Amino acid sequence: MRSLALGVDLGGTNARAAMVDRDSGEIVSSHKAMHQDRSPAAVVETVARLVLEALGGHGLDPGGFGRVGVGVAGQCLGRTGVVLCAPNLGWRDVPFGALLAARLAVPVRIANDLSTAAWGERRFGAARGFDDAVLVFVGSGVGSGLILGGRLHDGHRGLAGELGHVKVRPLRGGAPRQCGCGELGCLEAYTSGMNIAARVREELTAGASSRVLELVQGDLSRVSATVVDTAHAAGDSYARALWEEVSDLLGNAIASVVTLLNPARVILGGGVILGCPELRGLVLSAFEAKVSRSAAVGVTVERAFLGDDAGVIGAALLE
Amino acid sequence: MRSLALGVDLGGTNARAAMVDRDSGEIVSSHKAMHQDRSPAAVVETVARLVLEALGGHGLDPGGFGRVGVGVAGQCLGRTGVVLCAPNLGWRDVPFGALLAARLAVPVRIANDLSTAAWGERRFGAARGFDDAVLVFVGSGVGSGLILGGRLHDGHRGLAGELGHVKVRPLRGGAPRQCGCGELGCLEAYTSGMNIAARVREELTAGASSRVLELVQGDLSRVSATVVDTAHAAGDSYARALWEEVSDLLGNAIASVVTLLNPARVILGGGVILGCPELRGLVLSAFEAKVSRSAAVGVTVERAFLGDDAGVIGAALLE
Repeated sequence: MRSLALGVDLGGTNARAAMVDRDSGEIVSSHKAMHQDRSPAAVVETVARLVLEALGGHGLDPGGFGRVGVGVAGQCLGRTGVVLCAPNLGWRDVPFGALLAARLAVPVRIANDLSTAAWGERRFGAARGFDDAVLVFVGSGVGSGLILGGRLHDGHRGLAGELGHVKVRPLRGGAPRQCGCGELGCLEAYTSGMNIAARVREELTAGASSRVLELVQGDLSRVSATVVDTAHAAGDSYARALWEEVSDLLGNAIASVVTLLNPARVILGGGVILGCPELRGLVLSAFEAKVSRSAAVGVTVERAFLGDDAGVIGAALLE
Repeated sequence: MRSLALGVDLGGTNARAAMVDRDSGEIVSSHKAMHQDRSPAAVVETVARLVLEALGGHGLDPGGFGRVGVGVAGQCLGRTGVVLCAPNLGWRDVPFGALLAARLAVPVRIANDLSTAAWGERRFGAARGFDDAVLVFVGSGVGSGLILGGRLHDGHRGLAGELGHVKVRPLRGGAPRQCGCGELGCLEAYTSGMNIAARVREELTAGASSRVLELVQGDLSRVSATVVDTAHAAGDSYARALWEEVSDLLGNAIASVVTLLNPARVILGGGVILGCPELRGLVLSAFEAKVSRSAAVGVTVERAFLGDDAGVIGAALLE
């Protein structure tokens, strides 16, 4: 008989609950819902319903099933179950773990979704067999998940991995950009998909000349990192300057993490780094130029294997 | 009866072996020697003699005693016992662990001396009771030791903690400085005691005007970080500009480590950061300005408690 675990992936607009085979990592069944109402009470209800559906589909009930793991798109105070800040949900200091545990009468463990994704990759993906691996995610947000000594490292309060909020100094200088977290000069403020698109719109509106404008046929709402990457491939000089700065920051950040932590594997995830081949090439070059040579020996860089499933698999199997 | 462990601290000019009480961390006895001849064979002989003296003093012999732990001032490939690079010993790729184990017929475990110092502080010093703590050392060299999840994190090959070799971008720009490791733009190239002194000598020789010159009475060989700190306290503008750059780099580096790893404690060690109060104040200000606010909550910054004993205590008690 299969040994099953239940994981939840909680994003800003969707929640997903999945039953995961503990031995193979296979997702045996999956239930998804959107939450229009993002109030904690409504989201708890949505997630509880998904969990009950997932369990019910296997003839299980919450009593005696064991723990439910949840990956949350936000900063989580690990073991306390408190979501400190989840911008896409509009939450601050929400005791989500306790609320869900009370609603379902099961133990709940929450963690940041990049931590759960890293753990999923560790168990059944690109970090399988690697005791020291770092997942670097560059998508709508920027962050990392750290597998150190074979365990998920989530730090003193559960906030480890916040690579996106490390402060950076871009090549061209200038006033630091404001990040969604409210601070100035964070890596994410320069390199996330949303921030790249916002910046390009700003600069085009202010009169910058770029092929990006043709590619979106003048519709600035269609500007994205992917469009910039396409313009870069076509030799656009605006895109070249922007990608030079973005790749320098990302390559340096990854190099610093590798120099500091000496992992055996770096895993790249997220739509910006996976969906922009020109940018990815530049990031890898900058990484190789800046990483300490001794720490670079034996490190392999790999794409995430599990894609959007990594978080829910990792959440189910959290230790 | 006391349970004893034996640790060795191997530096560029001295070696020290100490018997350490496993329960209290107390150094029960200590034997030191200089090694004029830094060839691996000669150093192995010196260390072996110290170990035998230390054991002999307690009526012990190597057979059956258990493992000897050694902290080495250099990059160590942890479990393999190979010292990859120890500039102060002039070593590259020396299988020191195996050589010492063969000479003494005991198991030997080696690690970087900042890793052993961090472990000593974790067991009986400033990180006691902290599962997540980072020792940041700014002395003749620059580096760190990482205690994560209650364990020493030494990484895939044993090279974790090389904070001094993270590449940095100084405030004023300019060509990157060369580091002793051979690479360009390392944090250590700007912030270690030796590199600070070398840079000040260069700049004074090139005509820079500073009170430092009076303080050393024109004798450039007496230039040191401490002298710059004294000049800074007296309002010297050369010292102010230099300390602004150095503190920005160190404060940013510590902030990045805290944002990434979410430790509960940062421990400062090394003659530059402990011996230069003006610089330390500026570093702490820069750290506070740049660390992610959520990661900063609950972090305490403390001086190393165990000083030069941390490494030998940690080496003795390595797991």
